[in-house]
Amino acid sequence: MTNAGAMLDTYPKQRDGFDRDLLAECIEACFACAQTCTACADACLAEDMVAELRACIRLNLDCADICDSTGRVLSRQTDYNSTISRTVLEACRAACRACGDECTEHAEMHEHCRICAEACRRCEQACDALLSSMG
Amino acid sequence: MTNAGAMLDTYPKQRDGFDRDLLAECIEACFACAQTCTACADACLAEDMVAELRACIRLNLDCADICDSTGRVLSRQTDYNSTISRTVLEACRAACRACGDECTEHAEMHEHCRICAEACRRCEQACDALLSSMG
Amino acid sequence: MTNAGAMLDTYPKQRDGFDRDLLAECIEACFACAQTCTACADACLAEDMVAELRACIRLNLDCADICDSTGRVLSRQTDYNSTISRTVLEACRAACRACGDECTEHAEMHEHCRICAEACRRCEQACDALLSSMG
Amino acid sequence: MTNAGAMLDTYPKQRDGFDRDLLAECIEACFACAQTCTACADACLAEDMVAELRACIRLNLDCADICDSTGRVLSRQTDYNSTISRTVLEACRAACRACGDECTEHAEMHEHCRICAEACRRCEQACDALLSSMG
Repeated sequence: MTNAGAMLDTYPKQRDGFDRDLLAECIEACFACAQTCTACADACLAEDMVAELRACIRLNLDCADICDSTGRVLSRQTDYNSTISRTVLEACRAACRACGDECTEHAEMHEHCRICAEACRRCEQACDALLSSMG
Repeated sequence: MTNAGAMLDTYPKQRDGFDRDLLAECIEACFACAQTCTACADACLAEDMVAELRACIRLNLDCADICDSTGRVLSRQTDYNSTISRTVLEACRAACRACGDECTEHAEMHEHCRICAEACRRCEQACDALLSSMG
Repeated sequence: MTNAGAMLDTYPKQRDGFDRDLLAECIEACFACAQTCTACADACLAEDMVAELRACIRLNLDCADICDSTGRVLSRQTDYNSTISRTVLEACRAACRACGDECTEHAEMHEHCRICAEACRRCEQACDALLSSMG
Repeated sequence: MTNAGAMLDTYPKQRDGFDRDLLAECIEACFACAQTCTACADACLAEDMVAELRACIRLNLDCADICDSTGRVLSRQTDYNSTISRTVLEACRAACRACGDECTEHAEMHEHCRICAEACRRCEQACDALLSSMG
């Protein structure tokens, strides 16, 4: 949906750091997960059983914020910094894993949690793939 | 790319406010534009002629921030507030118009500005469609 | 707490647009309100009566996002754009007013809402002062 | 400037995790650093020598985004998650260290970089203090 890959191809200098396709997929997954987690937090808030979804809402909000900043950092190619990239990817992977685990527990009862768990898994795996590629 | 439409369909209560398809398109366009503007600011920063792209970079950064918050606000359905929705859409339309106009001026020289101008136009039009639907 | 005013004084070119002191106060108020609303949403989520605080939580989240982007836009002086500034300030004023009104209704029962209502009022007034100065 | 400490005191349930004063200081430092880095990126963009400040601008933008999401995550007390807290603090510390180091190199020439280096150091130390307290 975003132009992540196309924009990487227009970068005017040589890019350092990540493989182009793995990076484009991770940027896409971060922005998609940020949107899905924002919507899932709001849908959980509207459920009759909201009091039982507090942990899910809090994790949705954290995951949305961390995916957002990670997607922005990864969208920048100028003066690549491997330490910032690694640590922000580790934070994003941790947030997506925790939120995905929580949403999975409600996936059968709440369709928004099922979709959100998938978005979190996609982003967790994309972050993991980039981290693995760093060696 | 995001699950904006699918997530709208899982909202557990009746939604107030916007037409489902127009809303899903606008949420998608906001997140896509936020990513594209973030990447365009970075690509402009890497150009040899960066000093001539200051206005473009500043507008890219504003547009990314405003699209980000607009996409988040629109992703929430609980207790719809028409005043907040209208004013944030007006701000997003204004930012996308200004950034799209600026990027269009460099579209022939810089492919990242050409793609960014398209993302800004799509988001400007999606915001305008939602605003028009408010009557 | 932030260095908003001091940073305005270090801007290397002549600034266009807003009065220095009104602008510094508004930037400060935006960042403070973003933090307070984020914390108020979380405190509301932890209340036994969370189901009755749905509107408050949703407005807290919107207000935090809009204050965040407004504070960022106002922190930039390069190529001042009055249309973007005006519309983003109008969105921020609307969000702060709606969130402040909602939090005020719970101010006697919830101290976090009382403090949040004050942060929203401060930011609403700071946005209004900048808008009034635009004539 | 923010109400970080006062809001922590109003949290309706028992808080897990961090020492109240260290946490309040870190939340404050994150929001202050996000504002200062946003303004420093813009001031660098306006300098005649902008082409030599590309690394500084990119680090300012990354640091602003990461401090922003870290300040938001730390502002939430509901269902404290030590893994998310640790990894996001490590990312924030890394970004503040890299940005502070870069700004320090221009501190004598650019007052905005001198102030920004101080904001980055404060935030780096606040993140480090929280991480140390996790044992």
